[in-house]
Amino acid sequence: MSFNRFGRVLNITTFGESHGPAIGCVIDGFPPGMAITPEEIREALMRRATGRSRHTSQRHEAEDVQILSGVFEGVTTGTPIALVIYNTDAKSKDYTEIAAQFRPGHADYTYHHKYGLRDWRGGGRSSARETAMRVAAGALASKYLDQKFGIRITAWLGQLGELTCDENFVPESIDDNPFFCPDPARVEDLENYMDALRKEGDSVGALVRASASGVPPGWGAPVYAKLDGDLAAAMMSINATKGVEIGAGFASVVQKGTEHRDEMTPDGFLGNQAGGVLGGISSGQPVTVAVAFKPTSSLRLPGRTVDTEGNPTEIVTTGRHDPCVGIRAVPIVEAMLALVLLDHFMLHRAQCGDVPPQTPRIE
Amino acid sequence: MSFNRFGRVLNITTFGESHGPAIGCVIDGFPPGMAITPEEIREALMRRATGRSRHTSQRHEAEDVQILSGVFEGVTTGTPIALVIYNTDAKSKDYTEIAAQFRPGHADYTYHHKYGLRDWRGGGRSSARETAMRVAAGALASKYLDQKFGIRITAWLGQLGELTCDENFVPESIDDNPFFCPDPARVEDLENYMDALRKEGDSVGALVRASASGVPPGWGAPVYAKLDGDLAAAMMSINATKGVEIGAGFASVVQKGTEHRDEMTPDGFLGNQAGGVLGGISSGQPVTVAVAFKPTSSLRLPGRTVDTEGNPTEIVTTGRHDPCVGIRAVPIVEAMLALVLLDHFMLHRAQCGDVPPQTPRIE
Amino acid sequence: MSFNRFGRVLNITTFGESHGPAIGCVIDGFPPGMAITPEEIREALMRRATGRSRHTSQRHEAEDVQILSGVFEGVTTGTPIALVIYNTDAKSKDYTEIAAQFRPGHADYTYHHKYGLRDWRGGGRSSARETAMRVAAGALASKYLDQKFGIRITAWLGQLGELTCDENFVPESIDDNPFFCPDPARVEDLENYMDALRKEGDSVGALVRASASGVPPGWGAPVYAKLDGDLAAAMMSINATKGVEIGAGFASVVQKGTEHRDEMTPDGFLGNQAGGVLGGISSGQPVTVAVAFKPTSSLRLPGRTVDTEGNPTEIVTTGRHDPCVGIRAVPIVEAMLALVLLDHFMLHRAQCGDVPPQTPRIE
Amino acid sequence: MSFNRFGRVLNITTFGESHGPAIGCVIDGFPPGMAITPEEIREALMRRATGRSRHTSQRHEAEDVQILSGVFEGVTTGTPIALVIYNTDAKSKDYTEIAAQFRPGHADYTYHHKYGLRDWRGGGRSSARETAMRVAAGALASKYLDQKFGIRITAWLGQLGELTCDENFVPESIDDNPFFCPDPARVEDLENYMDALRKEGDSVGALVRASASGVPPGWGAPVYAKLDGDLAAAMMSINATKGVEIGAGFASVVQKGTEHRDEMTPDGFLGNQAGGVLGGISSGQPVTVAVAFKPTSSLRLPGRTVDTEGNPTEIVTTGRHDPCVGIRAVPIVEAMLALVLLDHFMLHRAQCGDVPPQTPRIE
Repeated sequence: MSFNRFGRVLNITTFGESHGPAIGCVIDGFPPGMAITPEEIREALMRRATGRSRHTSQRHEAEDVQILSGVFEGVTTGTPIALVIYNTDAKSKDYTEIAAQFRPGHADYTYHHKYGLRDWRGGGRSSARETAMRVAAGALASKYLDQKFGIRITAWLGQLGELTCDENFVPESIDDNPFFCPDPARVEDLENYMDALRKEGDSVGALVRASASGVPPGWGAPVYAKLDGDLAAAMMSINATKGVEIGAGFASVVQKGTEHRDEMTPDGFLGNQAGGVLGGISSGQPVTVAVAFKPTSSLRLPGRTVDTEGNPTEIVTTGRHDPCVGIRAVPIVEAMLALVLLDHFMLHRAQCGDVPPQTPRIE
Repeated sequence: MSFNRFGRVLNITTFGESHGPAIGCVIDGFPPGMAITPEEIREALMRRATGRSRHTSQRHEAEDVQILSGVFEGVTTGTPIALVIYNTDAKSKDYTEIAAQFRPGHADYTYHHKYGLRDWRGGGRSSARETAMRVAAGALASKYLDQKFGIRITAWLGQLGELTCDENFVPESIDDNPFFCPDPARVEDLENYMDALRKEGDSVGALVRASASGVPPGWGAPVYAKLDGDLAAAMMSINATKGVEIGAGFASVVQKGTEHRDEMTPDGFLGNQAGGVLGGISSGQPVTVAVAFKPTSSLRLPGRTVDTEGNPTEIVTTGRHDPCVGIRAVPIVEAMLALVLLDHFMLHRAQCGDVPPQTPRIE
Repeated sequence: MSFNRFGRVLNITTFGESHGPAIGCVIDGFPPGMAITPEEIREALMRRATGRSRHTSQRHEAEDVQILSGVFEGVTTGTPIALVIYNTDAKSKDYTEIAAQFRPGHADYTYHHKYGLRDWRGGGRSSARETAMRVAAGALASKYLDQKFGIRITAWLGQLGELTCDENFVPESIDDNPFFCPDPARVEDLENYMDALRKEGDSVGALVRASASGVPPGWGAPVYAKLDGDLAAAMMSINATKGVEIGAGFASVVQKGTEHRDEMTPDGFLGNQAGGVLGGISSGQPVTVAVAFKPTSSLRLPGRTVDTEGNPTEIVTTGRHDPCVGIRAVPIVEAMLALVLLDHFMLHRAQCGDVPPQTPRIE
Repeated sequence: MSFNRFGRVLNITTFGESHGPAIGCVIDGFPPGMAITPEEIREALMRRATGRSRHTSQRHEAEDVQILSGVFEGVTTGTPIALVIYNTDAKSKDYTEIAAQFRPGHADYTYHHKYGLRDWRGGGRSSARETAMRVAAGALASKYLDQKFGIRITAWLGQLGELTCDENFVPESIDDNPFFCPDPARVEDLENYMDALRKEGDSVGALVRASASGVPPGWGAPVYAKLDGDLAAAMMSINATKGVEIGAGFASVVQKGTEHRDEMTPDGFLGNQAGGVLGGISSGQPVTVAVAFKPTSSLRLPGRTVDTEGNPTEIVTTGRHDPCVGIRAVPIVEAMLALVLLDHFMLHRAQCGDVPPQTPRIE
C-alpha cells in the first residue's frame, strides 16, 4: 500500500530526486539463481539515457549503476537487490528562479499543497529521472522472462504528434534510430519535425506501443488484480502519461461484438482485439498495450502562472528538457510491462504452482 | 496485494459468483461516525440494476442488500462493513451447454487454464454481477466525500458505438433516461439504435466519462501511488474495459506543450487538460476520466470456438445479456471514482494530517 | 495493510460483531482444486464452540456456516471463499447496563477513544466471537497442508493457572476432555479447579502450546516476513493473548549457546530449541509455539471503573463468559498456525517455485 | 506483503548483507516537515554499534550514514528517505571455511534449502548487521513521536543469563554502561560475568524490556492490525528473538481476573497489567514490552554439524561475534517500538483524523 512501491509479490521501491545525491531502488522478492551484472543493467539504462541525440535532454548522466546487495558471485540470492546511481550532472542552479514559482503543467503546485514544502531542484521527486530505476529493475525482469519462458517484450514509438510511426513495422529498426521508430522511412520526417519543434521552443505528445509475446495463459486474476488493471496502473504511473489502452482500446467503443470477440479454432485465436487478456487473465496471445504521453510542460516559451504567494507572474522554464518525453518513454514502457508480467507470474505461481492445476485434485 | 481486494487504506474485498448463493463485500477501514442505511445503498444499486429497461439484461435481481456488520444504531463504527446480496434470479441451466465450451471473448478459456477448473454458471466470478458490490461500496464513499468535502461525482454515457452523447451536456438529464445520456436530444437515437442492435443479435462498445468536482489539492502521491495511476487500475478492473484516459487523454498525443499545459492566474487554472491531476496529485480542479468499454461477447450470433478437449465447435450464447455493457457501467465508474478518491483522502491524511502541513515545522 | 485482514498471499478478512446479524470471512487466494464441505468446516468450529461443557460460556450458537462463494461442485475454484454464520443466540440486553460504562480490562475504553462511538453489545468487534472465523478458515488451511504435505498441527492446553497439563503427553487425549488437556490424569484436577473458580466468580489465565510437524525446510523469509515473526503477530492477534514464544522462548534467556544451538548430524538435528525456525525460515523440524492468555476481565465480582462521562462507578459484568478463555483458544491457535504456514508456503512458492531452486540456474 | 518491508502506512524496506558493499533502507511515507541530519541518525547508530566495549563484537564500522533522498534543506519532504551505510570493516575471509558447512543454530541450513544458494560471508542477509537500519529509521520515528506527542521510549537490559538487571531502576544509568543496565549496582557483576563467558568461549541469552510513555489512547485496530500484534511481529523479526510479551505477559497465565484487570478511577488506571494495550488499541498508559533473546550460536567451542553434501563435520565459528546479542538489541528494540508506534499513529489518523471523532457526525 505504500507510496513509492510497485508490485504485488515482486516489489520495487524507488527513491531519489532529480538533483539529489542519488537515485535508486530496492527489488524485493526477485527469484534466486539468475546471473546479472551491472553492465547488463547499464546497457538497458543507456537506451533510456538522455544526451544520446540532439532530440532529447542534454543532461549527461553516466548511469553508473551499483549493485549494493542481493547478488552474490554474480547471481541473485533471493534477498533484496538494491541498485543505486549517483547523480553526476545535476545543475540545480538552473532552477533557483522557479523555487518560489509554480511551473504550469508541473507537479510544483500540487506538491506544495500536499506537503507544504518541496524540493524544487529539477522537479525533485516528480522528475522523470526516477524512471531510470524502472528501467534498471525491468532489465532483471526482462532477462528472467526471456530465459525462463522465452517471453519477448518490444516497445516502440507509435506516433509523435501527428506523425504515425508504425504503419510499416520493421522491428529490427527500432533501435537503429534515436526515436525507437519501427519504420525506417519515417525517421527523417521525425528528425525534421523535432528540429523544427526545438527551434520553436515548444513540445509535443506521443504514443508508445508495446507487445509481449510468449506469455503463457493463466497469469492475472479475476477482479482487482487483473493483469490489464495492473498494466494500466503501471503505465499511468509513468511521468506524463494521460491514457492507457489494452488491445483494441478506445477503438472498441465503435466495434460490434462480432467484430471484437476473437473467435477460436484448434489452431488458435482468429484475432487479438483483446490484447492478450480475457477476464483479467492472460490468454497466451501477445499482450498489447498503448500509452499516451502528453507534451512536456517545460518550455522556453513563457507561460502565465502564480508564485507561492499567489501573485501572478510569467515563467520560462530553463533547465534541460525533452521536447517529446514520449520518445525516451519507450524503454520505460518496456520495463513496466516486464515488471508487471514477472509480478503476475509470481502471483500466479503462489496460488496455482509451477504446473497448471490438474485433476486429480486434493480430495 | 491480494487478488480480490481494492484500495490502499480503505480496502474493499468483494466475493461471489454470478449464479452462486450470494455476492458481497467487506469494506475495511471506513471512517467511523457516518450514518448509512440499507435503503441508501439499495438506491445506488438500482441505478446499476439490470431489468430496468428493455435495453439491458432482463435478469431481475431484488438487490436486497443486507448490512451484516460495521454499522451500529445506523452509524458506521470503524469496523469492517460487510454487505451481502443473495442471488434470487440466477438461471444456471441457461449455461449448461457451455460448461465444456469456451465462449470467445470471455474469461472461460483463461480461467480454465489458470485454475484447471471453473464455475461456468453465468461466467462465475468473471460476471459483471460482481460490480454490484462496487456500486454498494461506492455509495458509502460518495456520501462521505459529499458531506465532508462537498465533492460531487458524475458519470455519463459519452458515446455508444458511433453515437456521441454529450455534445449538449445537461447534467439533470443523465438520470432521466435508461442510457445515462446527458443530451436529451440524443435519447431517441439511442433507443432506435439499441432496438436495431438487439434485433440483429449483436452488441456494441461505449465510452463512459466521469468528473469529480470539489476535490481538494494534495490527494495522490508522487510515483506508484499516483491518483491517476490508481484511477487507471480502478477503471481497468471493471469488466469489459479496454482503455482509460485522464484529462486530455489520447488527444494529448497530438497536442503541443503550449496547448496542453494549463496556465495559472490568481483566479485559477486557465484550462483542465490535466484532468485535475499533476504529478499524480490532485490540483483542486475537477478530476476527469474517460473509460472505453468493449462490446459484450455474449451474442446470439454463432461464433467459432473450441471445447475443453480442443475440438472445434460453434457457440451461441444464450442467457440474459446487455447488448451494450457500457450503459450500466456508468454508475460503476462513478463508484470506482468515489472509492479511489476516498482512499486517497485517507492515504493523504495518514501522512500529512487533516490540515495541510505548515511552517513552523518540527525542528 | 488493512485493518481486519490477515496474511501475505493468502488473505483472510473477517467481519462481524458479537451481537450483530452475522460474522463471516473472505478467504482470498486459496489454491484451486481442494474439496471442502460446510460440514467439514462446522466440525472444526464445534471444537471451539461455547456451551459444550459447563466450563465455558453458555452461549449456544449453531455455528451453521454457509459457503457463499469460491466453491463449485464441492471444490475450491481459486476465487474468494466467503463464509458466513448468522448469530442466533445473542442476548444484547445483558449488556445494556454497560453501554455507558467501561468494563476494566476490556476494549470499551479504547474503542471509545479511537472511534468516538462503539457497539457495546457483547463487546462488539472486540469479542472473541470473531475467532470462529479464524477456525473456519483454518479448517481449509489445515486440510490443504495435511493432504499436500502431510503436515500435522496439534495444539493443547499447556497450563491453566498454576496447573501444568502436559507433563504426561498423550496426544489422543486432547480431544477426549473439555480442556484440550493432553494428560488424562490431570482432567479431574482441572474440573475441580474450574468448578471452584466459577463458584468464586473469578477467572484465570492459561498457556496454550502448539506444534506443526512435517513442515518442509525453506518456508519463511529473512527479515520482516520471518515465519516466526508472522506467527508472533498471528498469535498476539488472538483475543486475550499477552505473550508468544517460539521454541525455547523465554527459557533461552538463561541458556548458554552450547545448550541452545541445535547441533546437526547426518541423521538430523540433535534438539529443537529453535522451534523449527532458523533465521526466520523453517528448518524441517516441528514448528513449536507457546501462547499466554490472560484471565478474562468479564467477572461477576464488582470492579471499579468510570463511565463515558468520566464519573467513578462500580461494574459487574453479566453476560455469558468463559472463566478461562485460554481453553477455547486451543483450536484458535491451531487455526492461526495453519493459516500462517499455508500463507508462507504460497509466499515461498511465489519466489522459489514448487521445486527447490537448483543448479543449473538461469545464466 | 513483501519480504523485506516493515509497516502498514509507514514502510521501511531494508537491504544489504553483512559483508556486501553496503546496507541501507528506504523509509517511505514519512511525514513531511521534520528536520533531520545524518549526525542525529549516526548518534542513534553508535548506541547499537559494535566495538564500543570488550563485551561486544570487535567489528569496527564507521556507521557513516548517508541520506540519499527525501530530505531537502535539512527537512523531510514526504518522499522516500533512502539511507545507506557502506561496509568498511567486513572480513569475509574469516568465513571461507564455512562456505560449505552449516553453522548450527544459524540460518545457513535454511537459506540453503530455501534459495538453493547463499551468501555465506558473515551470514549474509541473516546477519544482525541489518538491524543498523532499523535503528537508523527508528531515530527518525523517535524524534517525530517525541516532538509531536512527547512520547518517550526507553529500553534496557532486564536480564542477562541468570542476572536480573532492573530490580533497582535508575533510568539515567542505562546509557552509562556498556550493557544498557538500569541498575548501577549490577554493572560490575555483568562485567565479571561477561569476562568469564568470553574466556569460556560460550554465549548467553538475555531479556530486553521497553516502555513508551505518552502514547495517546486510540492507536491500534481491533483484529489483525492490533498494536500488540504488530509489536510482536516487530520484535520477533529482530535476530535471535525467541519470545515477546506485552504487559504482564506470561505471568498472566497464573493470574486471576481480579488481579489482572486494571481497574479505573477518574484519576486513571490502577495498574498496567495490560501493558498499555486493550483490545489491540492503546489505552494511554505506557506501552510495555519484553523480548527474549537467545544466546548467539557463533561459538569458539566446536559443535557437530553437516556440510552441504550431508557429511558430518565439526565446526568452530571464527569471525567477530557478540557473546550476548541481547545487549546490543536494546537500541534495536527501542527503534522497533518507535516505528510501530509511528506507523499506528498514521494508520489511526488515516481512518479517524487528527482530532478524535466527535458528535456531531456525518448524517
